[in-house]
Amino acid sequence: MEKVIIVGAGLCGSLLAVNLASKGYEVHVYERRGDIRKAEFVGGRSINLALSARGIQALEMVDMGHLVKEQGIPMRGRMIHDIEGHEAFFPYSGRAEEYINSISRGGLNKALLLKASTFSNIRFFFDHQCEDVDFDQGHIWFINILTNERVQDKADVIFGTDGAGSAVRQAMMKHSNRIRFDFSQSFLTHGYKELSIPPTEDGGFRIDKGALHIWPRGSHMLIALPNLDGSFTVTLFQDFKGENGLDALDGDLDLARSYFKQYFADAYAHMPDFDQDFMTNPSSSLGTIKCYPWRMEDKSVLLGDAAHAIVPFYGQGMNASFEDVHVLNSIMEEGHGDWASILSAFETRRKPDADAIADLAVDNFYEMRDHSGDELFQKKVLLEKRLEKEMPDRYNSKYALVTFRKGIGYRQAMLRGRAQDAFLLDYCRHVSDINSIDLQTLVDQIEEQVTI
Amino acid sequence: MEKVIIVGAGLCGSLLAVNLASKGYEVHVYERRGDIRKAEFVGGRSINLALSARGIQALEMVDMGHLVKEQGIPMRGRMIHDIEGHEAFFPYSGRAEEYINSISRGGLNKALLLKASTFSNIRFFFDHQCEDVDFDQGHIWFINILTNERVQDKADVIFGTDGAGSAVRQAMMKHSNRIRFDFSQSFLTHGYKELSIPPTEDGGFRIDKGALHIWPRGSHMLIALPNLDGSFTVTLFQDFKGENGLDALDGDLDLARSYFKQYFADAYAHMPDFDQDFMTNPSSSLGTIKCYPWRMEDKSVLLGDAAHAIVPFYGQGMNASFEDVHVLNSIMEEGHGDWASILSAFETRRKPDADAIADLAVDNFYEMRDHSGDELFQKKVLLEKRLEKEMPDRYNSKYALVTFRKGIGYRQAMLRGRAQDAFLLDYCRHVSDINSIDLQTLVDQIEEQVTI
Repeated sequence: MEKVIIVGAGLCGSLLAVNLASKGYEVHVYERRGDIRKAEFVGGRSINLALSARGIQALEMVDMGHLVKEQGIPMRGRMIHDIEGHEAFFPYSGRAEEYINSISRGGLNKALLLKASTFSNIRFFFDHQCEDVDFDQGHIWFINILTNERVQDKADVIFGTDGAGSAVRQAMMKHSNRIRFDFSQSFLTHGYKELSIPPTEDGGFRIDKGALHIWPRGSHMLIALPNLDGSFTVTLFQDFKGENGLDALDGDLDLARSYFKQYFADAYAHMPDFDQDFMTNPSSSLGTIKCYPWRMEDKSVLLGDAAHAIVPFYGQGMNASFEDVHVLNSIMEEGHGDWASILSAFETRRKPDADAIADLAVDNFYEMRDHSGDELFQKKVLLEKRLEKEMPDRYNSKYALVTFRKGIGYRQAMLRGRAQDAFLLDYCRHVSDINSIDLQTLVDQIEEQVTI
Repeated sequence: MEKVIIVGAGLCGSLLAVNLASKGYEVHVYERRGDIRKAEFVGGRSINLALSARGIQALEMVDMGHLVKEQGIPMRGRMIHDIEGHEAFFPYSGRAEEYINSISRGGLNKALLLKASTFSNIRFFFDHQCEDVDFDQGHIWFINILTNERVQDKADVIFGTDGAGSAVRQAMMKHSNRIRFDFSQSFLTHGYKELSIPPTEDGGFRIDKGALHIWPRGSHMLIALPNLDGSFTVTLFQDFKGENGLDALDGDLDLARSYFKQYFADAYAHMPDFDQDFMTNPSSSLGTIKCYPWRMEDKSVLLGDAAHAIVPFYGQGMNASFEDVHVLNSIMEEGHGDWASILSAFETRRKPDADAIADLAVDNFYEMRDHSGDELFQKKVLLEKRLEKEMPDRYNSKYALVTFRKGIGYRQAMLRGRAQDAFLLDYCRHVSDINSIDLQTLVDQIEEQVTI
């Protein structure tokens, strides 16, 4: 049987391992970090992510769809907190069955690794850092970081699922001229810092658990996603520079406290661990990575963040990585003859969608920052909710196309979504009361004019 | 006195070394390659470049302006060779004193290194490959590739002039998240291969020595620049893929010969060493590298190709690198207090111009490929030559702005040049005979409407 090596046992790598093992390949999985299967329960307070249709579809592919119910917390819409502490709930969709799920990265990763452990044709090598790859021969070298031992392995195909800082991609970059390797990394001027809202004393949620909470403040914002233990993971997005910038806040806890009291008073009231969290947790940068090609002939291919790291503003990072595995699986099931043909089909089919979700995520950052308080924009959003609710089979907002319509690719979702947005913004500009609109006529007009 | 380290003793690094030594700094220059000062005469048949106003200005800054006359061959225009072997000469400017100079890369580099050798405060370390940099302490490590010895040095500032594959830039990339290091490398689908036209038996030139020769063929082309020994360096630009693509030609000398006979028959007739050249010389890729920031606080800065590698289609790579040194010199002479302030002013002032010449060079590739045979485009070029000749003080084409008007930056040249082009293309669309135009009226119109 053919042997494959997977570098990186994060979300993408562990899902891929299960999928390839189920096809019968001999799978060696290498991971730089330690074995989280042995770690204490990691599904409680922790970093969480928004799992939606594309990600769920990929989990279902490996019979792990039950994780959504077991570990996910449905978030049916955005809870917007204004500066005076008022809350307003905006559902993600006019269709009741469409929502996203807050899920623990660690818990999900552990569940996938445990699933992988049930396959006798998977072997794990934790604490192994990828050092170099010989793509011509299919050789790969690792350093066992516990023993400093240098380890060599060999496979028919090497999968790089080792994240934004991918060592496999760095090995490919050494051949940049030969493969004409286009690569870009670009950072936002904003960064983020993780904080927390703990559970109440009796283990309950301090704020509504059924929503993704947002405190939009123009150029900066706070968000919070619920965890199973009653806590919320809170993330501040803010410019590094400027008066209340992360660089300034990081050095000055008094400033950080008064900044939160001024802009996020209602959230701050629920953050007893603020001082500790703020001092302990680093301020991190937000970047987009694009590259192409994703493969070295028939010997290696990048998936997930290694191929396309994106900013978090569409909640699609994990979903896009999982969808990579789903797309690869579909191509393998089409019966392409050899790896060159499989990997070529994969990168050709998937690259436009990966570029699209990267661009959508950056767009959403500017949209949230610059327009979410805009009256015309809000009018459009409300009109879209009416359309989705009353014409559920005939209208999908850009958000719904990206998040829920797994049957179409990100690029198609982007093009159609943008065209709809342009049409509806123009439409709203000429309508004073959106509640008096005849939706039937409007949806006919949209179908006629937005033909993408 | 303060000490500086320069990594890379190519054109940019050797010019910078001379400039900084003349200011009294202690200068250590490290170079991965061997010492070309000891090499045989390198100014004969070799790789050549087009030296123009911006580069000349920087050479004059270090009293090396005489090199232009000594080593350069004036090229007063383009000699266009059509597929039937007809020649047509198009001057670079309507102004007789404006031309570019074919000059040997090796000869120019050697002359600058010899000039540097006259300074007692410069020390050279050849065969030293940069391994890593500690930007906080200003430490840097090299491998002496002759002895395999590891060498450490330390300086107040480390200059990275080590070209497109810069090791200093790679050391900066390790701190990508900390400095939010935007980086991109992007390749054209075309590559290039160097060939040659040798001198005649009595040492003369086989084709006109006073021009840059071009054989434009739509999606592919050949160019030739003269050398002092009577030879021409010939470069084929062609797609890697396709029927006559570089990948196909590289494996099939018969195909290469018949391709040249079909498309470049008159040039091929002058290429007795074709077989040897074609088989020996590699096909190389063409890429653009952009990054930002260019500096690590007050400790290090990138210049030249290390900061901005560009494709060769505007003949500005060396000129842009030399102009970097000229701009840095101007800033240092403005009397900024410390290195942080000097390096900050340098990257802020220079980055928009570096981006502009990178974009202009890529644009010119597509312009040459897609439009140089276009009737409207040629009409515009002829009209511009009339304008430059008869109104030399009032009109500069985009090419002249970029190549000869060293008083304005590349970005300004790009913006004004593009606006002029748009105006003139539209104008030519509505004029049947450009010789009947009243140039006085036209130039008034341009001045009124192109206000950039």
